[in-house]
Amino acid sequence: MKLEATQLAAQNAPYLDTHDRSWDILRQQMESKGLNTKALLQQLSDLQIAIPSWALGAGGTRFGRFSFGGEPANLEQKIADVGLLHALSRSAGSISLHIPWDIPEDPAAIRELAAIHELTFDAVNSNTFQDQPGQAQSYKFGSLCHHSAEVRAQAIEHNLEVIRIGQTLGSKSITVWLADGASFPGQHSLRGALQRTQDSLQAIYRDMPEDWRMFIEYKPYEPNFYSTVIADWGTSLMLAEGCGPNAYTLVDLGHHLPNTNIEQIVATLMMKGKLGGFHFNDSKYGDDDLTVGSIKPYQLFLIFNELVYGMANNTANNPPLAWMIDASHNLKDPLEDLLQSLEAIRIAYAQALLVDQEALADAQARQDVTEAQEILQDAFRTDVRPLVREARWQDGGALYPIQAYRELGIREQLIEQRGMHTIATGL
Amino acid sequence: MKLEATQLAAQNAPYLDTHDRSWDILRQQMESKGLNTKALLQQLSDLQIAIPSWALGAGGTRFGRFSFGGEPANLEQKIADVGLLHALSRSAGSISLHIPWDIPEDPAAIRELAAIHELTFDAVNSNTFQDQPGQAQSYKFGSLCHHSAEVRAQAIEHNLEVIRIGQTLGSKSITVWLADGASFPGQHSLRGALQRTQDSLQAIYRDMPEDWRMFIEYKPYEPNFYSTVIADWGTSLMLAEGCGPNAYTLVDLGHHLPNTNIEQIVATLMMKGKLGGFHFNDSKYGDDDLTVGSIKPYQLFLIFNELVYGMANNTANNPPLAWMIDASHNLKDPLEDLLQSLEAIRIAYAQALLVDQEALADAQARQDVTEAQEILQDAFRTDVRPLVREARWQDGGALYPIQAYRELGIREQLIEQRGMHTIATGL
Amino acid sequence: MKLEATQLAAQNAPYLDTHDRSWDILRQQMESKGLNTKALLQQLSDLQIAIPSWALGAGGTRFGRFSFGGEPANLEQKIADVGLLHALSRSAGSISLHIPWDIPEDPAAIRELAAIHELTFDAVNSNTFQDQPGQAQSYKFGSLCHHSAEVRAQAIEHNLEVIRIGQTLGSKSITVWLADGASFPGQHSLRGALQRTQDSLQAIYRDMPEDWRMFIEYKPYEPNFYSTVIADWGTSLMLAEGCGPNAYTLVDLGHHLPNTNIEQIVATLMMKGKLGGFHFNDSKYGDDDLTVGSIKPYQLFLIFNELVYGMANNTANNPPLAWMIDASHNLKDPLEDLLQSLEAIRIAYAQALLVDQEALADAQARQDVTEAQEILQDAFRTDVRPLVREARWQDGGALYPIQAYRELGIREQLIEQRGMHTIATGL
Amino acid sequence: MKLEATQLAAQNAPYLDTHDRSWDILRQQMESKGLNTKALLQQLSDLQIAIPSWALGAGGTRFGRFSFGGEPANLEQKIADVGLLHALSRSAGSISLHIPWDIPEDPAAIRELAAIHELTFDAVNSNTFQDQPGQAQSYKFGSLCHHSAEVRAQAIEHNLEVIRIGQTLGSKSITVWLADGASFPGQHSLRGALQRTQDSLQAIYRDMPEDWRMFIEYKPYEPNFYSTVIADWGTSLMLAEGCGPNAYTLVDLGHHLPNTNIEQIVATLMMKGKLGGFHFNDSKYGDDDLTVGSIKPYQLFLIFNELVYGMANNTANNPPLAWMIDASHNLKDPLEDLLQSLEAIRIAYAQALLVDQEALADAQARQDVTEAQEILQDAFRTDVRPLVREARWQDGGALYPIQAYRELGIREQLIEQRGMHTIATGL
Repeated sequence: MKLEATQLAAQNAPYLDTHDRSWDILRQQMESKGLNTKALLQQLSDLQIAIPSWALGAGGTRFGRFSFGGEPANLEQKIADVGLLHALSRSAGSISLHIPWDIPEDPAAIRELAAIHELTFDAVNSNTFQDQPGQAQSYKFGSLCHHSAEVRAQAIEHNLEVIRIGQTLGSKSITVWLADGASFPGQHSLRGALQRTQDSLQAIYRDMPEDWRMFIEYKPYEPNFYSTVIADWGTSLMLAEGCGPNAYTLVDLGHHLPNTNIEQIVATLMMKGKLGGFHFNDSKYGDDDLTVGSIKPYQLFLIFNELVYGMANNTANNPPLAWMIDASHNLKDPLEDLLQSLEAIRIAYAQALLVDQEALADAQARQDVTEAQEILQDAFRTDVRPLVREARWQDGGALYPIQAYRELGIREQLIEQRGMHTIATGL
Repeated sequence: MKLEATQLAAQNAPYLDTHDRSWDILRQQMESKGLNTKALLQQLSDLQIAIPSWALGAGGTRFGRFSFGGEPANLEQKIADVGLLHALSRSAGSISLHIPWDIPEDPAAIRELAAIHELTFDAVNSNTFQDQPGQAQSYKFGSLCHHSAEVRAQAIEHNLEVIRIGQTLGSKSITVWLADGASFPGQHSLRGALQRTQDSLQAIYRDMPEDWRMFIEYKPYEPNFYSTVIADWGTSLMLAEGCGPNAYTLVDLGHHLPNTNIEQIVATLMMKGKLGGFHFNDSKYGDDDLTVGSIKPYQLFLIFNELVYGMANNTANNPPLAWMIDASHNLKDPLEDLLQSLEAIRIAYAQALLVDQEALADAQARQDVTEAQEILQDAFRTDVRPLVREARWQDGGALYPIQAYRELGIREQLIEQRGMHTIATGL
Repeated sequence: MKLEATQLAAQNAPYLDTHDRSWDILRQQMESKGLNTKALLQQLSDLQIAIPSWALGAGGTRFGRFSFGGEPANLEQKIADVGLLHALSRSAGSISLHIPWDIPEDPAAIRELAAIHELTFDAVNSNTFQDQPGQAQSYKFGSLCHHSAEVRAQAIEHNLEVIRIGQTLGSKSITVWLADGASFPGQHSLRGALQRTQDSLQAIYRDMPEDWRMFIEYKPYEPNFYSTVIADWGTSLMLAEGCGPNAYTLVDLGHHLPNTNIEQIVATLMMKGKLGGFHFNDSKYGDDDLTVGSIKPYQLFLIFNELVYGMANNTANNPPLAWMIDASHNLKDPLEDLLQSLEAIRIAYAQALLVDQEALADAQARQDVTEAQEILQDAFRTDVRPLVREARWQDGGALYPIQAYRELGIREQLIEQRGMHTIATGL
Repeated sequence: MKLEATQLAAQNAPYLDTHDRSWDILRQQMESKGLNTKALLQQLSDLQIAIPSWALGAGGTRFGRFSFGGEPANLEQKIADVGLLHALSRSAGSISLHIPWDIPEDPAAIRELAAIHELTFDAVNSNTFQDQPGQAQSYKFGSLCHHSAEVRAQAIEHNLEVIRIGQTLGSKSITVWLADGASFPGQHSLRGALQRTQDSLQAIYRDMPEDWRMFIEYKPYEPNFYSTVIADWGTSLMLAEGCGPNAYTLVDLGHHLPNTNIEQIVATLMMKGKLGGFHFNDSKYGDDDLTVGSIKPYQLFLIFNELVYGMANNTANNPPLAWMIDASHNLKDPLEDLLQSLEAIRIAYAQALLVDQEALADAQARQDVTEAQEILQDAFRTDVRPLVREARWQDGGALYPIQAYRELGIREQLIEQRGMHTIATGL
């Protein structure tokens, strides 16, 4: 299933007038402040977020999974789903594969299909946190950190295999996320496990193509854990530095202890030129994988404020970031949920672009704390939705993506085509 | 010092056109959705927040206190400061006294002064968390919970004295906040301390005038603590119910463990008709007493969403709430800081008033989680500042209170009148 | 499979001398302090912990489940497993069933089997957090809190069915744990959901036999949640009081926000006579369901200290508590894991029994904080293992249960009897 | 005031028999397991903890400070107090000065006095978190991170001055702890502040004597903060590496976000050879500065387990650690409180020394999680107090330090000598 430009144009038509009016007002308002609205539209248009191949079906918890109907049953259908998201939002221009859930059998055909949907392949993701049927060694007690050299060798080889698959699709980076850790004090040597993980990552890095990047994810805990091997950004950075210049830290918004100041981690990593990528989601308690911006939109704005600042003051040559949504869709239609996340990301980015950096720097230099807060909050309180909408419309997307999705009856068509009880591979 | 209407009118004049345009746009937008803007303006105008008498000077931490200049040195000057806040914002129409920091020597004169500034006296606050010079018994090991009957009797009598003082000013409620607790396991009997606190509160309640209300605050910890006697809303509610119908729970936004869902506590207490009041502030880690809305504005909105819902569905006869700002001003000019807090509160309230409750209830009935989120976020993402500004302007306040405060040179005048090194009584 | 007394006697024989010596030393030490060792042994012997029927197989996380071999495949085998635990430890004298995972087909036979293993049936547990095949209504959006009366009616009827099943086995209580809640702000009305839950619980309570008790569990969050309906002890207590005298709050050690003072909750509930039961486990981050005492043994001791105090000062007629282990066994042999938990519980209880309550009360009265801490820590630092071992030995159990379990080759025999790839029903 | 050996001998005499018996039993028990008790006693004897000069008086919170009577009024008296602690415990063999609270006027005399009490001078501590009277620049908005070069220069020079003072006393290290940070988003550039802090630390490091070490402390938050510049160990390590080989990270147990796995940070830093020192205390909620071991003794044991392992497997040449107690004494007699802390530290160290490292490594290699936990808990559950006591007694200390302190009437003598209302300089 593929949305055609004419469909969207027809869908947008009745709302265009209202949008134009609100965009006009906002545009004038911004221009009166000296903002370059053309440049803003371009920056928004350039922000493309990868959709992970495993997040297009209903997620689940330990209590069960409520299938949604019309879920994509194979990689081709997943690409079609991301294509739909991109057609509607013009901001989901790439897809991030998870191996072994989505091994392409005919890479050339898959690349062609992606191109039809105007999609590229972003970072590939390895999986050594689950045992696959027929696997020689079990990851029950870890993978890259495992006490046994055989298990580590298998996990290293899996990562290299993932890279090879990624190469066939044009990916240029691999994200390594581990569930390695211990459930109990004493289960393994904390130092030994870290050292072995370092060695294993170096082995992968050594055989990674020169034009690839490795993103090392961190996470403080999983359910039923006492410790994870890569618990925080400090450990991830240490491991990345231990690998080499093409290894970076990847930040997932949900992978932090309570009250962590995530925007500060972002600032620090960009100062070191070591921020590789971002997994977006939101959370109230732990790694809740909720819709982006559904719980802490101001934190999201503050993070984007650091990203905007970091990209504009890139003294350490931090490379362009790999952006991805990493949420779980248990109750909402996954496609609607992702559209909400995409919108929240663009809104936060637009707000951050509105921050008057010069005035802010000036207020900071004068220790004018009141004024500094006013500047940030003025940007955050601005209703930037007409701007975000205009950028999307200029790129050929839907003015109101969720509304369009519903009015066009997309889920109904997917169910008709694919059936009610398909189940997407993935978590 | 008192701001005159003509001063503010002159101050507003050059900005009125711009405001009118933005208000016009927002008004039309709201009215096209069927909203009654007149009623909205009235609701905003009615929301009056008490300013505590101890928060008008620079706050401090254990590392020191940086005095701000022109701080109010006595109760009269504090009233003048709140009068300034009210004149500028039209939303700070009452003052909350703390005894013994602000004992009025001539209550009638103080009431008259307050009336001149259009201020009333909200809840009075007792203090049994510090020893006063010459005090017979020490609160080092607690007050209402103390093992010794003499200490408890002194603390009970202090609360009754605070009520008597409040009566002379027209207050109708007392807020009881305790720092009672233990630094170490075993220091006191957890049960014994709670039982004695219950008994002490009942003793105060028995002698409280019939038309008064008692607000019982809770807080999970203080620095250097192992436990507090009234640790959470459950304990506070239990104690309030143990006292009688005029005892209520008071919620301070900063008094919760990490990740607490505060809006749910609000909803629960309103269902029971037992929410007495609110202390506004914001925090990232603990009881940080930061400017309202400076860290988690969406949480503030969600709380107001419950309050608006609760007030409109008041099946348990919850009385009107006592609202107060309880922040600490260590770096900013206290008056500017309070103006920012007042603005953030009105913004959150205005956003909550915009929530389409009917559509929300309908989406909830259909389990349409996507739609329910859209409804809430549509309200939150709306730039309601023109609405808040219009309500303030209609009430005779400043369009841009902080700007007016600066342009009118108020702090400079206060310093001139009061001197650079006055220190406000209080924390 | 059933352990015979002679087997255990033979197993214990070589270690008896060493044990006797260490017990002798400890006994003299305790008696020199005026402790009644006979009474202590009796109290320890009386502490019997229920084993939940779902915890005898390997647990799992969202990443998979590593089956252990020889897992019980039906209720009979589960009873046999608990029988083994009880034979070895003499402290696992009851079993707590989970419906529908363990519906007894022939209750009389099941009771007889349990009696052979000297087991009784403790609280039964309902399950409205998962959909069962063929179920008319789905719990995707809640059960007792659901917006739809049909769903609530189904969930109420399920609870009553669980009670009826429990009656056939001699159970006298039901534990209600709900995963009801919302993933997103706005998903449901917080107040409406709470009110409906109250109504549903009252409906169950009304039809519960008069000699039964209802235990209402609370929990602040699940993964992918924004709120749970019964988030904390305050809500649970409110609901229990709304039901009647036979409804109580149940505390699960893992169901709290970070840094919660659990022992204080225990003290408060016992003061109200409303503490119904306890689910033991341990955790470092969230609801980790780790082995009891594996992370925070001092907290466990402090909790038992409150329990011992509460049972000795039972002014509010709190009934005897229902004790249960609620842990998940992902990496260890479930039976070994449970033996470690049982040991940790008895150790903490024994330490709490050693606390010199009179001296403690005296130190508290004198505000001697140093001394109060010394008294608690003296008890905690005492090596009470010989006492715990002696109680077990006198009751016919193993001196060293895990060692006995291994030396007797129990797991190997279970695998031989049941096979390597059985999977226990349950989570 | 100085305790004489004869005083202590007389004090110990009546308890010696009982101690000897319990020590004998434990010694035999340990030797039967192949432990070298002589070596253990030596290791315990070698563990010397610095007492900070500011912790000998009553601490305070924002609510007040309850003076204790007989507090040391000058550096000489502080040294005498530490001398008392060392005489009683034989484990407080050094003192850590805080400048400017304790500037020695006659260094030679101070060194001589310290020598009389068998004390050395450990790390000196600088203070740029408070303004001193007459100071040219204020630290209200930071010190080493400040936007203004003048403020930074003053803070750098202060640190160098502290080093020079330390040199006169024989210190060889400086601990830098900053309260630099921001109360609000936008207050300062997160990246700018970090960069300036790096530059300032490098400036201090450059001028530090070659045989000195710099310890960089981290802390995630202070009350009323939004961010601290050196928030976590990752930032501290980055800064230390940016300075050079003699800069290290210092861990304070209370300086972590909720649920942080501190023992893992210790293991990681030792693997890098970058763990410089330790500030001991305990906490339930935040940086509570409670008595060591009063809340989480098992965590303390697990930390020591990593330290023991790290010192025995020191592949990265981590230097010997600087140990210090950093607690606050608000309710207990400060000297009694410190004696409890010293005891808790030695107990945890002794327990960690008992861990059978060989068996543990073997269990880990076999993934025998049950056994690994048994090994750790066997050590922790052992009552090592006779061992700790014997080590102290052999070194000439008191068998029961707190009891001795009380029976010898030390506090009463201090009050008699120094008066009831002295106040120690410090926080």
